[in-house]
Amino acid sequence: VAEHCIGIDLGGTAVKIGLVDSKGKIRDSIQIPTGSGRTAEAIGESIVLGVERLAKKNPKYPARAAGIGVPGFTEPSTGTITFIPNIPVLEGYPVTRRIEKALGLPVFADNDANNAARGEFLFGSAKGIRNFVFITLGTGIGGGLFLNGDLYDGYKNYAGEVGHMTVVPEGRVCGCGNYGCWEAYSSVTAMVKRAKAIIEKGNQTRLKKYYPDRLEAKVIADEARKGDFIAEHVFSEAAKYNGVGIANLINTLNPEAVIIGGGVSNAGSYLLDRIRHFTQIYTVRKSWEAVDIRLATLGNSAGIAGSAALAFMKTR
Amino acid sequence: VAEHCIGIDLGGTAVKIGLVDSKGKIRDSIQIPTGSGRTAEAIGESIVLGVERLAKKNPKYPARAAGIGVPGFTEPSTGTITFIPNIPVLEGYPVTRRIEKALGLPVFADNDANNAARGEFLFGSAKGIRNFVFITLGTGIGGGLFLNGDLYDGYKNYAGEVGHMTVVPEGRVCGCGNYGCWEAYSSVTAMVKRAKAIIEKGNQTRLKKYYPDRLEAKVIADEARKGDFIAEHVFSEAAKYNGVGIANLINTLNPEAVIIGGGVSNAGSYLLDRIRHFTQIYTVRKSWEAVDIRLATLGNSAGIAGSAALAFMKTR
Repeated sequence: VAEHCIGIDLGGTAVKIGLVDSKGKIRDSIQIPTGSGRTAEAIGESIVLGVERLAKKNPKYPARAAGIGVPGFTEPSTGTITFIPNIPVLEGYPVTRRIEKALGLPVFADNDANNAARGEFLFGSAKGIRNFVFITLGTGIGGGLFLNGDLYDGYKNYAGEVGHMTVVPEGRVCGCGNYGCWEAYSSVTAMVKRAKAIIEKGNQTRLKKYYPDRLEAKVIADEARKGDFIAEHVFSEAAKYNGVGIANLINTLNPEAVIIGGGVSNAGSYLLDRIRHFTQIYTVRKSWEAVDIRLATLGNSAGIAGSAALAFMKTR
Repeated sequence: VAEHCIGIDLGGTAVKIGLVDSKGKIRDSIQIPTGSGRTAEAIGESIVLGVERLAKKNPKYPARAAGIGVPGFTEPSTGTITFIPNIPVLEGYPVTRRIEKALGLPVFADNDANNAARGEFLFGSAKGIRNFVFITLGTGIGGGLFLNGDLYDGYKNYAGEVGHMTVVPEGRVCGCGNYGCWEAYSSVTAMVKRAKAIIEKGNQTRLKKYYPDRLEAKVIADEARKGDFIAEHVFSEAAKYNGVGIANLINTLNPEAVIIGGGVSNAGSYLLDRIRHFTQIYTVRKSWEAVDIRLATLGNSAGIAGSAALAFMKTR
């Protein structure tokens, strides 16, 4: 059996394709533009060409399978993408079967946060942990639940939609139509929006110099660390609602670990400390004592390595 | 293999013991007082005597195993009760092994809400459903998660502590030390407390005639149904936070069904209608469309039948 798998990270602007070994190391990778306005068929075709190019460049490392990570939902048995808001032309398109047929390899597709959870289990900070929750803090908030040693996908593969957990009934408006969702408080989008609103009210803050276009999670975290009051407030407010959301998951699932990934996790221990404090406040004691909250380790390679992890786990 | 199991419902005031057939029918049952001030050893001894008495009365239906339902936590491998606030003398006592030894039957113990979930799976409204959430709305709020065809107990057997999910950060004080827990809004205790506070402020309501000692979930539901404004308000407020809590579980776990049990579920369709409306408000559309919310069917027999279901499932 070949010890490599292909990981395909299907993003709104680019498709990243990597050749990944059984330890999670990305041996080689390429990136192709997703291309707005292209047909589903054309996108599928460029993915096939990309994988073939990667295979040709690396003849010593044949892949045994490929995994696709989708920012949305898939139908596991057919591999059809059912929901993908960034590339809606792919909805209803059997991308998985299309690629499988062209490549002659088994191909699998799943939600990107689910795949990132698989990646952390095989290669990252959840190695050997049978019950954990993976949370990705980025533009939105996603989750992957790993229960009894495997990814838990629910009745129709929609499990882990934790970003739309209500943390403040009738709170901030969310893109989903509800009010008070976790991601309306703790996503990068929410933090930036909150910082902008505060700046626009005239508060004194060093964040002003990044307003409006360079205001992002990294500068908020950096200025917070340097003691800017408003940056600290925005960051801690987001961390507080991370605490509520994560505590609710811990109380419900009693996991051994919670793994924090996504762009915000680049803030490292500054984020982790705050999340730990807030989560403890809202968690029942026994489950708190049983859990460890830690950062994901795959970082920027989570997309490719996670998609490859799906392929590894489905063909072992 | 004998087609009967013993179900033991360990309550704060009484221990109920029943002989249950493989369809969930309770053939015979007895009840013994738990007895305050008794030693763990004495309580264990009366349970053994109770089971023996039941066996002697029903020689045609030998039991193949016994299950115990505990209002608290157990350590699954040893059967030791680790937390039982109503009968603290039992904490640390290996009640399961003690009874097993005396009876010569395999004996299992688990949290009562987990067992009620098993009961609904084998005998009740969750028959054949592989992914569902069981919620018990009573003095407190408990839960049992049934995932991938089996009870999910988490890393240390604390999963399903849904009553302490935070539904209103910094909201009403909860006995657990946190603020804003679901059970501080939607348990019977919370509803009665809320009704009393409103009566004490002088609001006009037919609930006054039950104040203070006969104010309970049933009369609040009855008067609400008859159109009393305050009773309707108290009942709907509790139902709203049931909606938030249940929606958070649906968004996270994408179950096929949510089963509502416990004393409050006696309010029947009046409760169910309200829970369905509120839950839909807070649930993501796809997971909402996949789920059915329904009432538990075991009712008052949930304690005995659920405990027996544990025994059936562990010995099949």
